[in-house]
Amino acid sequence: MASYNAMSPNPLPIILDCDPGHDDAMAIVVAARHTNVIGITSVSGNAPLESTTRNAIIMRDLLGLDCPVHSGAERPLIREPRHAVNVHGKSGMDGANLPAPSGPPASTDAVGYIIETCRAQEGIWLVPIGPMTNIALALRSAPDLAGRIAGISIMGGGRFGNSTAAAEFNLWCDPEAADVVFRYGGPLIMSGLDLTHQFQATPERIAMVHALPGTLAPILAELFEFFSGTYRSRHHNIVGAPVHDPCAVMALTHPHLFTRRRAHVQIETHGTITAGMTLFDDRDLKDIPEPNCDVLTGIDADAAWLVLLEAIAHFSH
Amino acid sequence: MASYNAMSPNPLPIILDCDPGHDDAMAIVVAARHTNVIGITSVSGNAPLESTTRNAIIMRDLLGLDCPVHSGAERPLIREPRHAVNVHGKSGMDGANLPAPSGPPASTDAVGYIIETCRAQEGIWLVPIGPMTNIALALRSAPDLAGRIAGISIMGGGRFGNSTAAAEFNLWCDPEAADVVFRYGGPLIMSGLDLTHQFQATPERIAMVHALPGTLAPILAELFEFFSGTYRSRHHNIVGAPVHDPCAVMALTHPHLFTRRRAHVQIETHGTITAGMTLFDDRDLKDIPEPNCDVLTGIDADAAWLVLLEAIAHFSH
Amino acid sequence: MASYNAMSPNPLPIILDCDPGHDDAMAIVVAARHTNVIGITSVSGNAPLESTTRNAIIMRDLLGLDCPVHSGAERPLIREPRHAVNVHGKSGMDGANLPAPSGPPASTDAVGYIIETCRAQEGIWLVPIGPMTNIALALRSAPDLAGRIAGISIMGGGRFGNSTAAAEFNLWCDPEAADVVFRYGGPLIMSGLDLTHQFQATPERIAMVHALPGTLAPILAELFEFFSGTYRSRHHNIVGAPVHDPCAVMALTHPHLFTRRRAHVQIETHGTITAGMTLFDDRDLKDIPEPNCDVLTGIDADAAWLVLLEAIAHFSH
Amino acid sequence: MASYNAMSPNPLPIILDCDPGHDDAMAIVVAARHTNVIGITSVSGNAPLESTTRNAIIMRDLLGLDCPVHSGAERPLIREPRHAVNVHGKSGMDGANLPAPSGPPASTDAVGYIIETCRAQEGIWLVPIGPMTNIALALRSAPDLAGRIAGISIMGGGRFGNSTAAAEFNLWCDPEAADVVFRYGGPLIMSGLDLTHQFQATPERIAMVHALPGTLAPILAELFEFFSGTYRSRHHNIVGAPVHDPCAVMALTHPHLFTRRRAHVQIETHGTITAGMTLFDDRDLKDIPEPNCDVLTGIDADAAWLVLLEAIAHFSH
Repeated sequence: MASYNAMSPNPLPIILDCDPGHDDAMAIVVAARHTNVIGITSVSGNAPLESTTRNAIIMRDLLGLDCPVHSGAERPLIREPRHAVNVHGKSGMDGANLPAPSGPPASTDAVGYIIETCRAQEGIWLVPIGPMTNIALALRSAPDLAGRIAGISIMGGGRFGNSTAAAEFNLWCDPEAADVVFRYGGPLIMSGLDLTHQFQATPERIAMVHALPGTLAPILAELFEFFSGTYRSRHHNIVGAPVHDPCAVMALTHPHLFTRRRAHVQIETHGTITAGMTLFDDRDLKDIPEPNCDVLTGIDADAAWLVLLEAIAHFSH
Repeated sequence: MASYNAMSPNPLPIILDCDPGHDDAMAIVVAARHTNVIGITSVSGNAPLESTTRNAIIMRDLLGLDCPVHSGAERPLIREPRHAVNVHGKSGMDGANLPAPSGPPASTDAVGYIIETCRAQEGIWLVPIGPMTNIALALRSAPDLAGRIAGISIMGGGRFGNSTAAAEFNLWCDPEAADVVFRYGGPLIMSGLDLTHQFQATPERIAMVHALPGTLAPILAELFEFFSGTYRSRHHNIVGAPVHDPCAVMALTHPHLFTRRRAHVQIETHGTITAGMTLFDDRDLKDIPEPNCDVLTGIDADAAWLVLLEAIAHFSH
Repeated sequence: MASYNAMSPNPLPIILDCDPGHDDAMAIVVAARHTNVIGITSVSGNAPLESTTRNAIIMRDLLGLDCPVHSGAERPLIREPRHAVNVHGKSGMDGANLPAPSGPPASTDAVGYIIETCRAQEGIWLVPIGPMTNIALALRSAPDLAGRIAGISIMGGGRFGNSTAAAEFNLWCDPEAADVVFRYGGPLIMSGLDLTHQFQATPERIAMVHALPGTLAPILAELFEFFSGTYRSRHHNIVGAPVHDPCAVMALTHPHLFTRRRAHVQIETHGTITAGMTLFDDRDLKDIPEPNCDVLTGIDADAAWLVLLEAIAHFSH
Repeated sequence: MASYNAMSPNPLPIILDCDPGHDDAMAIVVAARHTNVIGITSVSGNAPLESTTRNAIIMRDLLGLDCPVHSGAERPLIREPRHAVNVHGKSGMDGANLPAPSGPPASTDAVGYIIETCRAQEGIWLVPIGPMTNIALALRSAPDLAGRIAGISIMGGGRFGNSTAAAEFNLWCDPEAADVVFRYGGPLIMSGLDLTHQFQATPERIAMVHALPGTLAPILAELFEFFSGTYRSRHHNIVGAPVHDPCAVMALTHPHLFTRRRAHVQIETHGTITAGMTLFDDRDLKDIPEPNCDVLTGIDADAAWLVLLEAIAHFSH
């Protein structure tokens, strides 16, 4: 497992594959602060591709990040596109008054960009925090890719679902793509719902963002307010939105904040009520399959929030 | 939920639907001691129907139980029959020198027997501790049955599997039958693997059976030895076989030994890797479906073992 | 294959399992004239069980048939009940002013009735012309049944669908039950849509019914009018409703009216777009499975209509 | 539908996506003679990717074709790779003494090549005659691709199967990829098994190839002999191997040789016995979906053989 100290002189190179999405936006902030973001790729997910691409560019602009944004798949491998309007609003990032993007994406070839970039530079981490369509397309199109990357750190799945009782949204949208990723054969880190629900944007934590100086912090605080509002309206016991996506970045940059275990995880692609489920083989048998995944099981939520808060402060001028 | 004191003057009437099976045998012992066993029905499962029927009759004879044994379905609703030779041996109850059965089953009409008996006497508990084929056939053949019984207490399913990563053996054999049972609409109690693995036949506990006087106890002790032996040979961390099936009986007769919660549980019938899974809807959402099941979550294993031990002693002359 | 001359002194004994349904009504007429109808069983299908049972009793009464009507399954083995209101109207037999039934069904135990009757008298033909739920329940509940009956003659399936592109209504309603029937192992005759669409109630043919004397003929003519009307309103090229269900009866009583071939037919129970499909193995390979089914492929429609017409006339006083 | 006269001054530009395969080899010959082969892409199918790539290069060399060969997907989108050793032998093109390839593929980026080429030149026909993995990856990676190509002409599917009763080999290997292709929204021509089995390499036709002068003809004659031999050994009534793949090329270059109809065709991706099936919606209903496919239904086999023969002669020096 990669280990890394914050603000290292040699930050890990990553391609962030996302569908912003409020928590994707926060993941971009953490990645901008603690990794070497080679590029950002967008995918259909929380909102349609046009919106997630637009939001990714806006976040890139707000942070002054020097990296391209490439748009990718406008729909899952096989299934019809589905979005999370009830969580993220119609724009995918409702709740704040956002500037217009500085321009169009660098290309509409996210998959080709991923392939070429990972061939030009070995050891990149892929960090898919939306439906894994782009990553699956790249892995299947370029059979050599699996051997060239450092690994894949995903946000998705978990021991319970949200879109259905079995499936988390990212995997529910594109179970077939997730199946490709979980069977790709290299290092794989999973931040599932049972982890991310331990890391919530509580009112107290959002207040800490409001209290930061500069112009970016208020925008992000408003995004947190909206995101937590939709969660609270739909849940019984949640005090703030789970900050899902930054976990997949911090899994690489701040591994000491997490507990983990090795597990064999498979994706159900055909079930009537379980499609998109991450099935853990927890059997105590002597002949079960080898683990294929590092599953993050716990997070030091207070410390992780400080990482996020510091990153926001860093970019809030 | 029914409550009951052991050795009550008015024991609960039950039909025990089983596929003995070592732990089925123990369930018959507990049922004989603490319920009014109206009848025993056999089904294909741990072993082929001929063997499970034979074993059920042998146990009935050994206990001197005054009830009929009817044989039922020789295969699951849809799927091909599968057995658990690696757990229970070829006879379904390997490990002891058992007597021959006193005769054939009362009929080969277990399903008809269940229907007629539950119509003649309201308020019977059905206790299926094998694949739920017979019960599903009865529920579908007699649409009024659901309203005439007290409820169904099953051993099956759980938060992890054994036959597959997702599915426990009884549900893996006949997911479609389990689906009928879980959607039948009346009281339903579930003793799944996460419960029954808390109740193991450890060497110390088996020694307590060996120490009992009479002729039955040594036979049952040998059955426990065999059953625990196959479990230990296949598992890393199990010290004794989980005593699965008696839990479904004690759930009715000794409810105070268990912790429980209400849950919405569905059965996956179509998944590639999840067929036969019991899917719990654990989402904290405001609009999830109503619970359909009492899920037993914890057991006072020492106390439960004493219940079983006392029952064995009672019949060991 | 059984052969039989109309109005034989030894008509074939059958149990007609139906969901009337206009064409079921006509099948009852043919059966009443040319077979020994031991009993009629009803099932949920074209209309809810209550309606199909009522319609079966009404038809039995109108024909003066001396046989019991037993009601059976109120829903398919696994799936939710579905009906064909757009074809048969809300009552299941819309279009004629029908009398009230003479009484309730003989029992609500169609499955038990089938089992007991087929054990009491060997060599009965089962003729399911609705969803095959009752027959599947009987076959699974009584493993000996398959060896006691003469065979099963079904209306269902075919080389194209009607409820979906793949599935005919009876199989679409209960694919799992059909799967049990197609794998039961004994003689099986299939009248599918590609056969029954060759046998249409054209205006000219309906006029022949109108021209018959007596009181029954006008009622049946009105049923034909309604049935053909719904078909014409939904189809491009159909001039009259396909008279599906009588084919499964005439397959036994007038086999010379049909061409046929042996085929291996399987039922898809899990497909997204093919559930309930009858899959024919038409491959010219040397190692394909053995045929399990007599598939009727052609009908002498004019002659078959005369059989139906004569039967109507016979009962129209 | 595109129309085209053989040896036109403006041959249609195509990218031939193949898995040679004996009949793929013949398709390359026809394409080389009658189309503008922009490029050839290889895919895992009849043999592993390494073999199909090698075979494609060998054929390109033998014909003196001036086009690149790019290798693509080494496995289907989701499923495990499967090959047709029993039909094509271990090399994928057993039966002739073939030269070594002149060199490696131009790249291992077939998908990227397809995308870039179709963006650089509008109006190319894609002709996938193996599993459609590369095409599906390109369509999903580049959402604009569907609007830039002239259409897709496939060999695959049909009204009966060969790998299973329901599925033809190409679709059986990668149902999910086929599903992407059949729903891509643009012109689609399908040459299925019910067409290609009308076009067999009979002994008389193979003799015509043997009789041609030059060095290429004997090689291809030997390939035909092997291919027909494996077919005859596995089938009852086939006199020569169906020459599947050239149909998808001639569908474009010699459309007058074919009869056709418009149909709505869907791909089953989840069925237990129907996965990879092309389901035709043949219902005569007024509200069925719009056709998405030109299905070729008949071929003038003698004339088509002469087209193939002339092409072989053209290249046989």
